[in-house]
Amino acid sequence: MHLTQCLQRSLQQTPDKLVTLFGTRRHTYRQFGARVTRLAGALQGLGMAAGDRVGMLALNSDRYLEYMMGVWWGGGVLNPVNTRWSAAEIVYSLDDCDTRILLVDEQFLPLVEELRARAKRAPLFVYAGEGPAPVGLLSYEQLIAEATPVADAGRGYDDLACIMYTGGTTGFPKGVMQSHQNLWAACMPRTMDMPPIPGGVLLQVAPLFHVAGLARALIQFFAGECHALLPTFEAEEVLRIIERERVTETLLVPTMILGVLAHPRFADYDLSSLKRLTYGASPSAGAMVEQVIAALPGIELSHSYGLTEACPTVSSNLPDGHTEAARRSGRSRSVGRGGFGVLVKVVDEQGLEVPRGAVGEVIVRGPNVMQGYWNKPEESAKALRDGWLYTGDGAYMDDDGYLFIVDRLKDMIVSGGENIYSAEVENVIARHPAVALCAVIGVPHEQWGEAVHAVVVRKPGVALSEAEVRAHCREFIAGYKCPKSVEFRSELPLSGAGKILKKDLREPFWAGRQRAVN
Amino acid sequence: MHLTQCLQRSLQQTPDKLVTLFGTRRHTYRQFGARVTRLAGALQGLGMAAGDRVGMLALNSDRYLEYMMGVWWGGGVLNPVNTRWSAAEIVYSLDDCDTRILLVDEQFLPLVEELRARAKRAPLFVYAGEGPAPVGLLSYEQLIAEATPVADAGRGYDDLACIMYTGGTTGFPKGVMQSHQNLWAACMPRTMDMPPIPGGVLLQVAPLFHVAGLARALIQFFAGECHALLPTFEAEEVLRIIERERVTETLLVPTMILGVLAHPRFADYDLSSLKRLTYGASPSAGAMVEQVIAALPGIELSHSYGLTEACPTVSSNLPDGHTEAARRSGRSRSVGRGGFGVLVKVVDEQGLEVPRGAVGEVIVRGPNVMQGYWNKPEESAKALRDGWLYTGDGAYMDDDGYLFIVDRLKDMIVSGGENIYSAEVENVIARHPAVALCAVIGVPHEQWGEAVHAVVVRKPGVALSEAEVRAHCREFIAGYKCPKSVEFRSELPLSGAGKILKKDLREPFWAGRQRAVN
Repeated sequence: MHLTQCLQRSLQQTPDKLVTLFGTRRHTYRQFGARVTRLAGALQGLGMAAGDRVGMLALNSDRYLEYMMGVWWGGGVLNPVNTRWSAAEIVYSLDDCDTRILLVDEQFLPLVEELRARAKRAPLFVYAGEGPAPVGLLSYEQLIAEATPVADAGRGYDDLACIMYTGGTTGFPKGVMQSHQNLWAACMPRTMDMPPIPGGVLLQVAPLFHVAGLARALIQFFAGECHALLPTFEAEEVLRIIERERVTETLLVPTMILGVLAHPRFADYDLSSLKRLTYGASPSAGAMVEQVIAALPGIELSHSYGLTEACPTVSSNLPDGHTEAARRSGRSRSVGRGGFGVLVKVVDEQGLEVPRGAVGEVIVRGPNVMQGYWNKPEESAKALRDGWLYTGDGAYMDDDGYLFIVDRLKDMIVSGGENIYSAEVENVIARHPAVALCAVIGVPHEQWGEAVHAVVVRKPGVALSEAEVRAHCREFIAGYKCPKSVEFRSELPLSGAGKILKKDLREPFWAGRQRAVN
Repeated sequence: MHLTQCLQRSLQQTPDKLVTLFGTRRHTYRQFGARVTRLAGALQGLGMAAGDRVGMLALNSDRYLEYMMGVWWGGGVLNPVNTRWSAAEIVYSLDDCDTRILLVDEQFLPLVEELRARAKRAPLFVYAGEGPAPVGLLSYEQLIAEATPVADAGRGYDDLACIMYTGGTTGFPKGVMQSHQNLWAACMPRTMDMPPIPGGVLLQVAPLFHVAGLARALIQFFAGECHALLPTFEAEEVLRIIERERVTETLLVPTMILGVLAHPRFADYDLSSLKRLTYGASPSAGAMVEQVIAALPGIELSHSYGLTEACPTVSSNLPDGHTEAARRSGRSRSVGRGGFGVLVKVVDEQGLEVPRGAVGEVIVRGPNVMQGYWNKPEESAKALRDGWLYTGDGAYMDDDGYLFIVDRLKDMIVSGGENIYSAEVENVIARHPAVALCAVIGVPHEQWGEAVHAVVVRKPGVALSEAEVRAHCREFIAGYKCPKSVEFRSELPLSGAGKILKKDLREPFWAGRQRAVN
């Protein structure tokens, strides 16, 4: 149960098979293995000891996969940095888990000085982009060229493999501790239910810093197959690479899928190689599913539901939940059933299972469930109770074990596949001197599923514009977390106990819909 | 990583699906679950505490699968008794791991009194056969009827799941300690590479006390599919059940396959449902493979190599290693490649990997490798070195990682799929007062692969016949371990160090063959 075992196996059995396709660069497993074992040696040379964190702040590339395997091979722990975060958030997460080495690509060079200046203990920066390294940064390629390959450090099982930061209800990002076994076990259900197509090519365009992208990459490694990578989502690039690399399968969020389908040159590309499409982060993708099936007849659709704390997959709705009958019966709206090894229950506030059809909180148990939050025992104890992970998602289960997400018990917004905790945004807005009270909710949005909406009460006699609120937010948090719209009111609806009644705030936006999440 | 998790999942998702077909008896997962949770309660009522061993001495039946799941559900550990062993061997193994409860079916009732009398601490006997329990034995059906169902005891991960006895080079059976995680991980490669056919039916005719049968049953449970069971191998029964239950897949040893193919009524049965055939325990099944393909065109063949200590699978040669091209190139003679999560190497006497094509010992590492031998630290330390399991099998690996078994480094005979340690048989023969010296070797046998052959030097002036040697052996060891033939000589070839040169003894029998094992 070492995550490098799959690479060792491919090196033994299929060394001449292609593993990464990135732009015009293509590597076989043998070449990839040579780079990984040298990278592991180089990182050890830079001081990476067993269990030390190494970050990467970069868009998708073949080097991202080398980073994953190289850090593990050398005995380190990943800290894949959310590329959409503000400098403040990144610094918090690097400091929080004491990341000693940070790989950055050309996209994020502009952040380096700020990160260096603000970090409590600045990491070593390694330039892992294209072309020569800028002055003052170590060069990834030079490190690899000069390093001696090392043997696999042999970490596995309960050893930490990755710390992945996720937004926090308290306003601070939390580092989710994922062991080798957690990630191994989390990839198993999908590997069993829909093993990668032999000889196929996976398109990696969902960001690899997300657990969904990282886990899907791992599944491809488990099967010893090939990855084609795009640095970032651009609809026509997706069409182009599917045709060029004969991509057989990919994982996209609904926003990306809609972008691809709507592209004016959609019909100009040969997409006949594409057999499977997995989508996530969308309990209400009904219309999208119909569009996909109309545009790509015969494609196998699957929908996964998960969270970083479950590393990530909790349940999957497989192709048999997307048939015409399933779409008619409404089953295709389900996020599917618990995968092998994963126990899923819907419980009431006492933690007791509710009858089928009744709404409760989704709880999860299994070897895929995280070890806890880094250095946050209280938050860990809240999330993990009696061996069960409390997801904060409201759902019901039908008689066949299909899960239907209906609400979010945690105060969270999902916009374009990103989780945004209302509390985090509220904390930032509240810091503005002109704000008396505020609440942040998700409102339906055609493209993003939900959009962040702020309701603000100004302090008496003080001026504050929507643009000022948004500019203030952008200083502290990632752009995608900033309110897309701001509404000013003279008061907020409060409960008897003085709690803001978000339900009342949300109601007019969601009227006439079956769910209060999208 | 609890082996009962798959049952919990089926109970949640597919309670009305059939899980066991035995004779005219058929149970759904709901019925099976009700019996399992009551059986667990009954066993606890009989004193089974967490980690306690419960044995079963019975032919295959639906109750054998209930036993597996029921003991695990209740927190116990399996000790599946080899049904071909002598009373002396069974008593040794029951005493060795202190098995407190033993389930027996009608076939083994005649042994009960002897086991009770000879055991150091006799177990409780539970009659798990058909019809009412004989006087003096507890009744399995009555226990289930009267018990209260209990909740899953929740054992898993490194907790012991099973102690499986295997012949020992020292002459004493060794209890292989298999944890929940070991069995879980051992089933993964196969579950990934050849997931059970959805809606399919597995025929369980290979004995469930063997790790190969038990693991294959587990894989079927992992996938939530159905088992059809035959108590014992009989060629026409196999044909009949395939037709009647629309069996889709089965695991057989070559001896069984040849028996089925050669049956005079083979052509009278509709075998069109059978899609897959897995065979094991045979590095030289070339002719058999051709016969299967001629008789069952289009069938998917796979060959697995493993050992009890690896729980069991080490490598598999999948259908793509059985194509016409693979048969022409000789690749179909391979036992395949290491499965996912299992590292396999061929090493020299220093434990260093040999070049591809060179012969060495097969060593194995992974979460599937046993925890060790029960109460035998010295034997455990010999088998497990630096995290690697030394198999005692000689093999070479080709450039694509395919393993070819060429010799057995341990002094072991494989006859009809059963492992027989020469030392065990030699120890028994040597106890006969008329024997001066003896050696036991495997010789080629058309039906059984290998047959046990004894070479005996009599004490001067003492008479001893072949029949006497065989009768003497039958007193102490299972019939399949007794010599099929006995040869008397005046001396044995000895090395300079006085060691019997078994290679010289074997040579004339194996002349003209590529391997010295079958």
